[in-house]
Order: sequence, then C-alpha cells, then structure tokens
Amino acid sequence: MQYPNNIKKTFTKLNVSHSNRGMNLENAINQTNDYYLREDKALIYKKPTPIGIAEVSYNNHKKIIEKAYFKEQSTLDYNGLYKGKYIDFDAKETLNKTSFPLSNIHEHQTSHIRNVIKHGGIAFLIIRMNNINYLFPGEAYINYIDNNDRKSIEYKYIEEQSIIIKEAYQPVLDYLKAVDQIYFKGE
Amino acid sequence: MQYPNNIKKTFTKLNVSHSNRGMNLENAINQTNDYYLREDKALIYKKPTPIGIAEVSYNNHKKIIEKAYFKEQSTLDYNGLYKGKYIDFDAKETLNKTSFPLSNIHEHQTSHIRNVIKHGGIAFLIIRMNNINYLFPGEAYINYIDNNDRKSIEYKYIEEQSIIIKEAYQPVLDYLKAVDQIYFKGE
Repeated sequence: MQYPNNIKKTFTKLNVSHSNRGMNLENAINQTNDYYLREDKALIYKKPTPIGIAEVSYNNHKKIIEKAYFKEQSTLDYNGLYKGKYIDFDAKETLNKTSFPLSNIHEHQTSHIRNVIKHGGIAFLIIRMNNINYLFPGEAYINYIDNNDRKSIEYKYIEEQSIIIKEAYQPVLDYLKAVDQIYFKGE
Repeated sequence: MQYPNNIKKTFTKLNVSHSNRGMNLENAINQTNDYYLREDKALIYKKPTPIGIAEVSYNNHKKIIEKAYFKEQSTLDYNGLYKGKYIDFDAKETLNKTSFPLSNIHEHQTSHIRNVIKHGGIAFLIIRMNNINYLFPGEAYINYIDNNDRKSIEYKYIEEQSIIIKEAYQPVLDYLKAVDQIYFKGE
C-alpha cells in the first residue's frame, strides 16, 4: 500500500526509550488487542493485508507464493466483538499538525464506516496526531464528510469530537475505555 | 494451507451445469455475501488469508513480495455484522458420508468459537456434507467437543442440530435465513 508522504501507517524511525511512548500505532494496538484477548475483555483482531498473487510454485504439494503484491483493504483493518457489540476501526497517523488529510481514507472505507453505523455496529478511527492518540467516532467522521468539501479535517474538529486515549504500560493503548465513554454511557 | 485428503475447502472438480449446484462452497458464500452487501442486508466479509513474507523487493518504492507462504487463520474465515449482531463463521466441506472429521478445525478456531459465544456474538459453521449445506450452530459444536472424545462428529448429530441451507439462484446460499431461525426467533 502506498501512502502520501505526510501520512504513515507506522513510524519508520523507532523511538528507543524505556517507555511505550513512541511505539508505533499499529504495534500499540496489536499489543493492546492481545492484552484484551488474554484478559477476556474483547475479541479484536487485525485483518491480514490482502494480497494479489501473481506466481506460485509447489514444493511437496505445498503452495509457495513466488510473486505477489499488496492490495488495499476494502474495509477497515481491525474488527471484532466487545460487550456483545460489533466493533470496526482503523488506525491512522499523520505528521501534519493542523489538519488530517482525507487522502488517507479511501472511498470504500468511508462507505464501510457508513454501513457499520447503519447496521448497528460501532465504527471509529484511532488518529495519532501531534503525539496524541484520539478515538474519533465514525459518526463525527461521516458528519464531517457530508458537510464539508475540504480535503482534510481541521485538527480543532478532531480535538472537539474525540476522546483522548492515554498511553500506559499495560494495556499500551486502552482504547476500549474511550469506547465505553462514547458508546456504553451509563452501563 | 494443507487439508487432510478427505477434507477440501473447495471442490477441485467444477460441476459445469447451468444451475448453481456444484458451485464450490467458498464461491457460493462469497457471492451470497456480495448479494447481502448490495441489498444492504448485512456486512459480511471473508478475511484475507494470512501470509508469512520471506522476501520482498522494491520497484519504484512499491513493495513487491518475492517469496511468501500461507499461514493458518487463527480465527474463522468470515465475520461481520447482521441486524446489529456480530457474526463469525467458517465453511467446511467433507467428502466423508458418515462423520465430519474434527482434524479440519484447529484448536485455536475452537477457542475462537467458544470466545465469540461467550462475548455475545453469533458463531457457526457452514458444513457441506452429502451434498447438503448445513448451518451448524457454534453452541452445538462446542457441546459436542466438550462431551465427546471422538475425532469426528457423527453425521446424525450434524443433521439433528443444524438448519439446512437450500441453494437457489440469488442469493446462492441464503444462510441468513437459517441464522434468523436460530438466533432471531420471533423477530
């Protein structure tokens, strides 16, 4: 998958500190999901990246991929089950400071977010921007898309509409706490 | 992925008839999911097969996979959202006539089925056996596993515990009708 220069799925430069700060967003979420699974709190998995296979060979009847390329996910990267509810989300990082470029979210992903909400599921984005992790609800995202012609979302809107996810030792990124605040109020 | 000889994910011999009969199970489910999506009935996707990448190259900054192998899915192949509920399932075919070999379902998949049920989701298997498609509820599967030491499930038990999914023109395999009967009684 190719991203515009200002958007990165993962940091390429690892911050070698003793804290979790600087752990790339995808790793932080994967470790958090493992924690949720171990603690029996939720079942949330990252979908494998889809590939297009161009060449295969066989070794003892075992199929080996000899040439393949990455394809775009038509849905979001993560989905699963929490407190009986369907959850679906993606993680996005940007180095931009004042706005989040919409080029990072494909049209079919926007449709998917719309669909999940319509069918009674929970959809959101985890956005890392200005070194802060935001749980940005799908509803706020769709509302923005439907009412703006801009190619990016102002940082101020993200700040206003999101819940901040604090980084910690374990779990690294307890995003379900933010999910509780938004989607399970009063439970 | 390698399967025992008596289990196949897809028919290798295609039945070239004008009806849908003989369409391999995976294709039938994929086409049905496309139909559900188009008709806005449910959002159910097949997860991409996970791969282990051994070698990559770069062409104009585009990453190309030069060697990779298939890995086992640690969950089930299909999941999604239907009537606000989380749905998770897998499709299995066997040419055996009297029993369904359990070697086809990995231990982590059995744990996953158990987990989905515990967290309030819907889990099941679609089993094609003796040319009939059965929706075999996860609860019946777990109940069998917990109370039997056998390496296969008797066909009689599958027949008793399942709802038959009839094949049709469109959708090819309307398995949500069976889901309605089992999980949405009286709605």
